[in-house]
Amino acid sequence: MTLLEHIREPRDLKALPVERMDELAEEIRQFLIQAVARTGGHLGPNLGVVELTIALHRVFDSPADRILWDTGHQSYVHKLLTGRQDFSKLRAKGGLSGYPSRAESPHDIIENSHASTVLSWADGLAKANQVRGRQDHVVAVIGDGALTGGMAWEALNNIAAAKDRPLIIVVNDNERSYAPTIGGLASHLAILRTTDGYEKFLAWGKDVLQRTPVVGQPLYESLHGAKKGFKDAFAPQGMFEDLGLKYVGPIDGHDIEAVESALRRAAGFHGPVLVHCLTEKGRGYGPALEDEADHFHTVGVMDPLTCAPVTPAEAPSWTSVFGDEMVRIGAERPDVVAVTAAMLQPLGLKKFAEAFPDRVYDVGIAEQHAATSAAGLATGGLHPVFAVYATFLNRAFDQVLMDVALHRCGVTFVLDRAGVTGTDGASHNGMWDLSVLGVVPGLRIAAPRDADQLRAELREALDVDDAPTVIRYPKATVDDPIPAVGRIGGVDVLHRAPQPDVLLVAVGVMAPVCLRVAGLLAARGVDATVIDPRWVKPVDPAIPELAAQHAMVAVVEDNSRTCGVGSAIGQALRDAEVDVPLRTFGIPEQFLPHAKRGELLADLGLTPAEIAGSISAALARSNPAPPHKENAS
Amino acid sequence: MTLLEHIREPRDLKALPVERMDELAEEIRQFLIQAVARTGGHLGPNLGVVELTIALHRVFDSPADRILWDTGHQSYVHKLLTGRQDFSKLRAKGGLSGYPSRAESPHDIIENSHASTVLSWADGLAKANQVRGRQDHVVAVIGDGALTGGMAWEALNNIAAAKDRPLIIVVNDNERSYAPTIGGLASHLAILRTTDGYEKFLAWGKDVLQRTPVVGQPLYESLHGAKKGFKDAFAPQGMFEDLGLKYVGPIDGHDIEAVESALRRAAGFHGPVLVHCLTEKGRGYGPALEDEADHFHTVGVMDPLTCAPVTPAEAPSWTSVFGDEMVRIGAERPDVVAVTAAMLQPLGLKKFAEAFPDRVYDVGIAEQHAATSAAGLATGGLHPVFAVYATFLNRAFDQVLMDVALHRCGVTFVLDRAGVTGTDGASHNGMWDLSVLGVVPGLRIAAPRDADQLRAELREALDVDDAPTVIRYPKATVDDPIPAVGRIGGVDVLHRAPQPDVLLVAVGVMAPVCLRVAGLLAARGVDATVIDPRWVKPVDPAIPELAAQHAMVAVVEDNSRTCGVGSAIGQALRDAEVDVPLRTFGIPEQFLPHAKRGELLADLGLTPAEIAGSISAALARSNPAPPHKENAS
Repeated sequence: MTLLEHIREPRDLKALPVERMDELAEEIRQFLIQAVARTGGHLGPNLGVVELTIALHRVFDSPADRILWDTGHQSYVHKLLTGRQDFSKLRAKGGLSGYPSRAESPHDIIENSHASTVLSWADGLAKANQVRGRQDHVVAVIGDGALTGGMAWEALNNIAAAKDRPLIIVVNDNERSYAPTIGGLASHLAILRTTDGYEKFLAWGKDVLQRTPVVGQPLYESLHGAKKGFKDAFAPQGMFEDLGLKYVGPIDGHDIEAVESALRRAAGFHGPVLVHCLTEKGRGYGPALEDEADHFHTVGVMDPLTCAPVTPAEAPSWTSVFGDEMVRIGAERPDVVAVTAAMLQPLGLKKFAEAFPDRVYDVGIAEQHAATSAAGLATGGLHPVFAVYATFLNRAFDQVLMDVALHRCGVTFVLDRAGVTGTDGASHNGMWDLSVLGVVPGLRIAAPRDADQLRAELREALDVDDAPTVIRYPKATVDDPIPAVGRIGGVDVLHRAPQPDVLLVAVGVMAPVCLRVAGLLAARGVDATVIDPRWVKPVDPAIPELAAQHAMVAVVEDNSRTCGVGSAIGQALRDAEVDVPLRTFGIPEQFLPHAKRGELLADLGLTPAEIAGSISAALARSNPAPPHKENAS
Repeated sequence: MTLLEHIREPRDLKALPVERMDELAEEIRQFLIQAVARTGGHLGPNLGVVELTIALHRVFDSPADRILWDTGHQSYVHKLLTGRQDFSKLRAKGGLSGYPSRAESPHDIIENSHASTVLSWADGLAKANQVRGRQDHVVAVIGDGALTGGMAWEALNNIAAAKDRPLIIVVNDNERSYAPTIGGLASHLAILRTTDGYEKFLAWGKDVLQRTPVVGQPLYESLHGAKKGFKDAFAPQGMFEDLGLKYVGPIDGHDIEAVESALRRAAGFHGPVLVHCLTEKGRGYGPALEDEADHFHTVGVMDPLTCAPVTPAEAPSWTSVFGDEMVRIGAERPDVVAVTAAMLQPLGLKKFAEAFPDRVYDVGIAEQHAATSAAGLATGGLHPVFAVYATFLNRAFDQVLMDVALHRCGVTFVLDRAGVTGTDGASHNGMWDLSVLGVVPGLRIAAPRDADQLRAELREALDVDDAPTVIRYPKATVDDPIPAVGRIGGVDVLHRAPQPDVLLVAVGVMAPVCLRVAGLLAARGVDATVIDPRWVKPVDPAIPELAAQHAMVAVVEDNSRTCGVGSAIGQALRDAEVDVPLRTFGIPEQFLPHAKRGELLADLGLTPAEIAGSISAALARSNPAPPHKENAS
């Protein structure tokens, strides 16, 4: 039996002598490499926090003490140490979540895998402890990349202001969030990181001692410096000290004793303190360390020795179609620039960045800044394309509304991972974009049904200079091209029937589903017209006109049913006083569990069979025998 | 003719000798006091930036150089110097906007009056200048309070990273944004502010000269320090320097020559630079300076000498009803805490703060942090009430969705200034809350129709501990109580007719409007039932049931029609297969100009007469003679 197998809860970890921790760390690393190679998942980040996680669970008493993980994809080691060692269905339906999950364990608090939130959670929990007179610790682990997010700043500013409210911030600094971190903060961390605190102490000492009480905390810290941590206690605290936060570091995040020592000191401070840990993403796994791009941030199923993917390369993804088209557009239009929030590679912009390095801006994990700086770029005469996961644009809703749309800026938002994303769980689904962006005055949204349409609609979007535009597509491979058989207004007709009963409105990638629905309906004697609106906002005036020629309208979308395209079409029908019954098919108003995209769509009834069944049943109820088909079935 | 009257554009200002600037400043101050007393408006902030604005327009060449105002309510002096001296209809329909307005002048760039956005705009404009090879300056003016907003941090981090991209940040530091600024940043600014740079130079000099190139900019700056600015060049740069920003300051923001000198030096840096100006809110106006609360941040129409309001005190506002009830609740429930984002007083929480100082958290201009720290407070066992202007909660949409709702936290959001707000213009209207929050799974929304309902619904919200709740009400006085004549499900019936044709659904404060609509319809022989759903999300199952008993349903709300309560009821009807025609009345999908709330509602057709007219016309078209009323009209 391995050491790891003995650990069912953090108490078991504390019972082991510290000398055996390196052995345990090695076991965990091997476990992670083997397990994640079988399922895919976030490998690099978890290899980087093995020792840090061990130290956290040895020093603190979870769950009474709250150990909070920002973003959460680095919680695999935490799972292993809190009774969850069956990784066989990691991120799969019914298996362990790839993030903390309150359904799995009382040791998990935050399920939101959007970055930069943890310090705000921690501040709230620390305030609640104070109001309720509780002495439990609150410990927030946040990456250096996530510190570039505005929320983290808002929280730091508040945390630092309450000198008597204990809260421990552990900065897990691996010098890269998703990609090498950029920006002023990164430069500052680099200075902190490379400063050998002890050697500088003599030069610093006098200055430190003369400072005012607010910035004089290092003195206090020096007096309390434990044996092992002494050396670390005198690094220049820089901006964290300026804000009034006590700073401990930098600490070698792979030295368990050093981390434990620092955490114990931090726990004794009785105020807000920041522990700066240096870690190495992909630690202990050669192939990950050699991967310059992102140190195996996420991997698919692979051979752990050769790292060869187990499943062969699939058809082109929506992401790659976008990325390739951007390179072509970039060559044609010098005014087109790309913006990304720490997601250059996952969004397919790497080739554009290589071709046009002066026309790409990676702003860090900072969606608000990305959106509003795009408004500035547009006002300055350029046409920015801000590519972003659909779920993350929610973080910049106000900026889209108030900066981009109110100012009628020609900014194109490209939403990757729109709709049901799947294995990353509730907070990665991009299933509200059509609803939330749907209310923004003047904004136009396209949902391409295939690669040709993506290329065409992207170019149409880039031709709009006086309003924001949005293109959205899922995390998936691209289906075969779906030819239009005609166009009415701006609407592509995908399927025609001579005397149709139902108008099927297919939003983007639901086009092939709708065509199959039409086939199933035809077999039941119900004829359908299938259209792709191409631009789903604003609603094309052709749609109410077409609707009036049918006995029923059905809208199919992979967005929340609430306020989705179905709702917008409902309003357009009401405004046109076309009171044809409407049925909408989409995602119900709920958060989705993690599972594959296809599994979730099936669970939600977004399959041709279920949609066809619902439509024919509704038709039968509202109009038992369609007039022109009395003898058809 | 005064000096001010000679200035039609910034060029005229430059033609005047610097010796006359103090005279001009005094003229401007007197103009502002007299003009704003007549109309109401943001007085204190503008009195504080008279000299700063003069200096900006003397040093830079607007509009080629871009002078950008964060939040924008401090742009009155800028208006005066750029050809806009008719303040007689300030903030009124057809008059000058209270914020920059591109329709008014090419000197205005940003209309968004949400705080903390300006640095992102500036970054985008500076990048566009760089791509297009332009040498124009970009100057962003931001208050110390706005620096607490996360966006500002995201932008600073990006601006600092581009050492060769010129951009000038002017921090207008008056030690208070809306209220005295709090937090770590405020402490840091206080240290910078009180440091006498020159005297510390001897102690600092050696240290500065020994620093690395990144942090060694002060040396460069010292060599370029102009005569007057020399003294200011050696203050400790602290966190701004740590980020890599050049820092000039602190400068006396009321010394025009000093500010001009600092700005000219900043303009010569050819990189990002921060100029720290100390100003006094309400400068030169005794009553404003004596007002400890907020130095006359905004004033109503008043006598400029006595400061007595010209119109007598009105009926209680929604805000005060909320504030008083919170004090009662606070005494009953020790778990209830209040959260505000720099808006304690405007949101009516002052009394609560006085009664329960340990249970109120002002987090600064930081709505994201407010929402997520509220999730932490709830998870820690308390019930937080986050009171916020409806328009500002848009800044925390992702946090409401992903932190509060996904985690089923019992957080109550109280949205003041919901619906049409009016005179503050497009970006202060809270007219999207019902739409955007409407998509959030599990969240419940109440729209009280009167003060009694506000009190009751607030208490109902505070009894929900496993889901977020929202209460929304407008910026207005409270109407008379509107008694219910019955309740069906959770729905209050406000008016019954024996054989009603139309079901009128009144959202919150539209209840009295709907009752008048019912009266007008009755006069035309159309009988209406009027209901108040109280909780508009989720849609009460009683509504489809009631709808099925009517020939038409009409929903009236002061929210965007797109995805509003009308849309949600439409979906509920579809899901219940109640295909009764539905008509929705609300705000069309557009941004609204500034005008009084009542004027805007009238312009939008949200009056009893127009609504009644639309409904009876629609009824006549869809059903020329209502069955039971054939002889009625």
